[in-house]
Amino acid sequence: MSGNSYGKLFTVTSFGESHGAAIGCIVDGCPPGMELSEADIQHDLDRRKPGKSRHTTQRREPDAVQILSGVFEGRTTGAPIGLVVQNVDQRSKDYSEIAASFRPGHADYTYTQKYGFRDYRGGGRSSARETAMRVAAGAVAKKYLKERYGVLVRGYLSALGPIRPNTFSWDPVEENAFFWPDAAMVPGSRPTWTACARRATRSAPSDGGRHRVPPGWGEPIFDRLDADIAHALMSINAVKGVEIGAGFESVRRRAPSTATR
Amino acid sequence: MSGNSYGKLFTVTSFGESHGAAIGCIVDGCPPGMELSEADIQHDLDRRKPGKSRHTTQRREPDAVQILSGVFEGRTTGAPIGLVVQNVDQRSKDYSEIAASFRPGHADYTYTQKYGFRDYRGGGRSSARETAMRVAAGAVAKKYLKERYGVLVRGYLSALGPIRPNTFSWDPVEENAFFWPDAAMVPGSRPTWTACARRATRSAPSDGGRHRVPPGWGEPIFDRLDADIAHALMSINAVKGVEIGAGFESVRRRAPSTATR
Amino acid sequence: MSGNSYGKLFTVTSFGESHGAAIGCIVDGCPPGMELSEADIQHDLDRRKPGKSRHTTQRREPDAVQILSGVFEGRTTGAPIGLVVQNVDQRSKDYSEIAASFRPGHADYTYTQKYGFRDYRGGGRSSARETAMRVAAGAVAKKYLKERYGVLVRGYLSALGPIRPNTFSWDPVEENAFFWPDAAMVPGSRPTWTACARRATRSAPSDGGRHRVPPGWGEPIFDRLDADIAHALMSINAVKGVEIGAGFESVRRRAPSTATR
Amino acid sequence: MSGNSYGKLFTVTSFGESHGAAIGCIVDGCPPGMELSEADIQHDLDRRKPGKSRHTTQRREPDAVQILSGVFEGRTTGAPIGLVVQNVDQRSKDYSEIAASFRPGHADYTYTQKYGFRDYRGGGRSSARETAMRVAAGAVAKKYLKERYGVLVRGYLSALGPIRPNTFSWDPVEENAFFWPDAAMVPGSRPTWTACARRATRSAPSDGGRHRVPPGWGEPIFDRLDADIAHALMSINAVKGVEIGAGFESVRRRAPSTATR
Repeated sequence: MSGNSYGKLFTVTSFGESHGAAIGCIVDGCPPGMELSEADIQHDLDRRKPGKSRHTTQRREPDAVQILSGVFEGRTTGAPIGLVVQNVDQRSKDYSEIAASFRPGHADYTYTQKYGFRDYRGGGRSSARETAMRVAAGAVAKKYLKERYGVLVRGYLSALGPIRPNTFSWDPVEENAFFWPDAAMVPGSRPTWTACARRATRSAPSDGGRHRVPPGWGEPIFDRLDADIAHALMSINAVKGVEIGAGFESVRRRAPSTATR
Repeated sequence: MSGNSYGKLFTVTSFGESHGAAIGCIVDGCPPGMELSEADIQHDLDRRKPGKSRHTTQRREPDAVQILSGVFEGRTTGAPIGLVVQNVDQRSKDYSEIAASFRPGHADYTYTQKYGFRDYRGGGRSSARETAMRVAAGAVAKKYLKERYGVLVRGYLSALGPIRPNTFSWDPVEENAFFWPDAAMVPGSRPTWTACARRATRSAPSDGGRHRVPPGWGEPIFDRLDADIAHALMSINAVKGVEIGAGFESVRRRAPSTATR
Repeated sequence: MSGNSYGKLFTVTSFGESHGAAIGCIVDGCPPGMELSEADIQHDLDRRKPGKSRHTTQRREPDAVQILSGVFEGRTTGAPIGLVVQNVDQRSKDYSEIAASFRPGHADYTYTQKYGFRDYRGGGRSSARETAMRVAAGAVAKKYLKERYGVLVRGYLSALGPIRPNTFSWDPVEENAFFWPDAAMVPGSRPTWTACARRATRSAPSDGGRHRVPPGWGEPIFDRLDADIAHALMSINAVKGVEIGAGFESVRRRAPSTATR
Repeated sequence: MSGNSYGKLFTVTSFGESHGAAIGCIVDGCPPGMELSEADIQHDLDRRKPGKSRHTTQRREPDAVQILSGVFEGRTTGAPIGLVVQNVDQRSKDYSEIAASFRPGHADYTYTQKYGFRDYRGGGRSSARETAMRVAAGAVAKKYLKERYGVLVRGYLSALGPIRPNTFSWDPVEENAFFWPDAAMVPGSRPTWTACARRATRSAPSDGGRHRVPPGWGEPIFDRLDADIAHALMSINAVKGVEIGAGFESVRRRAPSTATR
């Protein structure tokens, strides 16, 4: 079964390996008449760009997105939107030593077991680079939700290892490389911070704030909004947990004895 | 879009309201040739049966499942398996007072907003009774996974409010009404335990142990096994969080400073 | 992949063998608020009922449909509509002689090859009895299309072997056992008519008249309305061809030389 | 609902307008390990290329396909195969006069009704150019079916208006611009032939010969092979009828009176 598509009415199908010719996706189901330009998508792609801070892989990619279809005279037509990003920095030699080995925590072994062999260039299809297309398609979806329904989708880094923000504000989130909501704590100079950062950029839970979602969204039973969000988030490399609302905290919170803890 | 189906190769489509004539589901995609009887499914349905302990709703249901199709001479045929459970205990009058009101924490308001009116009998489609069909379909899936692949699927109650088991063993799990893995702690006589139990049976996180899953299961990207499991679990009433492996703990665990906490 | 579901927004999933306990389906995606009763569905089920004329199988079935869910206080709720018809006339002994043989033109051999064994009672899942659930689900869809959009869906027998109607009128269609649009030709006493009828009831092409379909229905490319209709019709037992509009005639019609034929 | 995807296990999702930057598709579900190069796909693309004969549109397109992903070291990896064809010949001015009008027999009006406006450049998404991606994806599927199962998929022109071949042979089919199976009749010099050809290249029914399909292919009920083939064929521009096996002829063939016709 195809595992490369997501969504039913608004469907994203992606393709591409970290070191192939290009990565891309088809956004099918975007309503017609919405103004859309490459700049709208590029802004979010730039936010995720590797090398944005010294704490991520040093790979440099312009990640310049091109709209191949679905937009005419600056507006979506209702036809599928083809998006592509050329892979200009392929440097396969950097990865050649792993051709004969498996990296712990990566999908190398799984892909080899499932498909008989694998594209060993930087993880191939299982590379985190795949998330670029989620960001691109997400930028289209976010724009529509905001313009049509006033629904705001945004996220921030809620924990960096044991470190949690002392104060919270959306304002600084876009101002620092960690999407950290407490301006006073950034940049962090303490070794702990830096050490955590090196990991946290891979392992910290993500938190999407959704504002004013109208009642009745989502579908009953298997496709309620909580389930779809959990499905989408848990399908991102290295995501190990998803909470909605109070999450696991709600278990303790509601127990009478917690008052005395 | 239909939100009442789950799965692609093994698809479950369910129907039924808590106080309609019956609830049921169609299991499509079950391989042919597996021995299957109503007793195989009934065992799991009895485990979830309301009223199993004094901590759940007092509603009494035999929940007797009937196989309507897909099984011939004791074996699955590859045709869709129709399952139905008659609703013998409908007692609509018990719920009549909520016809004109919305119960906090229930989907009453959402359904009314989405569909214009609602079946107010005990939550209608949004009743937790819907999970009976997940259990029935799950029993078919579990039997196949165990017989064909030796994959064991089971669960236990991992936290009861602030209470966690002191020791862990699968043996007592099926022996007590809380599916609790620490025999020494059950039955709990402390008020806290009882108070928590009253809530925890609704709100405690569930934990499914999966044994010896062969490498390569699941599909890449959006349908990796983690994502499908998160989707399925998060679609159950009142589930607020899903963790895989070390879950959120992994964030702290991997940070060097945690040693000093 | 499940082949037992059809449709995306309005989805029908069916189950049942010709001689199992029951046949049924789940209609998912029917909009809420439409008046619906078992009588609405029963009317169409009675039209297809085997034994309606002496030219079909002599099997007698009341085919009494029961609505198990999705309807509350006489109106659809938006929840999945569970429909079931009990198989009261199972007479498996009538079919016992074919347990060890394959009937030409039936799916017996195909099912055995695909699934390793088969339910040999009257064709099991591949029985034409399966169409009862298409009729039941179709009755729900037709009612909605008519009430909400004024779209009328109906059919008649357009050819009986070499026999074609001399005149056409919708009026007599429901008045005779052949759904024949020329009252003057029915009942047919000529041997040819009777001989053809015996076959035609199995092999004649069906023709669905669709009145005033609003522009823009269907989806582009693979799911245009023509394709969905062809898919649905060609999936009915013994249907060997589907034409839209002028169909194959359009090839000849548009050629200049046809004027001289 | 997306109408731009086809297939369940082997899924094709296409994008692109006749005069946008490019057309392309994602082939998801192709098994790993099959040798695949752009030349394998290009061969079929060249067969459909507009301008192959004087009877088709004069538009000239190299239609050079590029494989963007899913192939590594000359073999498919199991990852989605991204295919793209740049639109080098866009000549939008040729179509400018239709921006304010609707072409009879085209989807211009339908698209405008459905989406509120349309890409008027050469039909945009509804252009027959869209079939290039069916051909490209089909080339991948045909190669796998032939190599893995020995199943041969091919087609020929079975009727040209009233003209039918006097003899049949697969040999000449690839040798003439009409894919005509009777070498003695090609090239046709009679006005009728030429006149028909001008139309027939748009309106003649297509016939796909399938050799040695193993029993058990396809899925029961709604997705039997006949239905899937009808769905796919009828979704091609201007296709008005699909027959399987003897098709409509079977109705007459089986009637006793046909012997005397």
